Amino acid sequence: MATKTLNVQGMSCGHCVNSIEGSVGELNGVETVKVHLQDGKVDVTFDSKKVDLKDITENIEEQGYDVA
Amino acid sequence: MATKTLNVQGMSCGHCVNSIEGSVGELNGVETVKVHLQDGKVDVTFDSKKVDLKDITENIEEQGYDVA
Repeated sequence: MATKTLNVQGMSCGHCVNSIEGSVGELNGVETVKVHLQDGKVDVTFDSKKVDLKDITENIEEQGYDVA
Repeated sequence: MATKTLNVQGMSCGHCVNSIEGSVGELNGVETVKVHLQDGKVDVTFDSKKVDLKDITENIEEQGYDVA
């Protein structure tokens, strides 16, 4: 299991939190996802044999956010 | 038909726009609702015989926004 903290810009409200946590959390191989709104950070733990970090960042970017 | 522009604080993203336009738009008597995100304003046209302005502001406040 891998753990990564992503810097994500554009998350501004509770809807954003729900949207990202819901969508990333549904990816096969993602164990946990936690958005820290004030910090602009997203903690993700995932099985790197099942999902690439790239898939996770792309999922977030497709929702309109910038992953630094 | 009455028209009113409300000053609303806390609207920060597209999710907020959809949430407010969807919810207020479903109120009986509301004809149109348009959120202006950058300006923090919500334009509403409504039939004052069917819905009070108070019902509209309460609907927005119940979603967690402040109506000035």
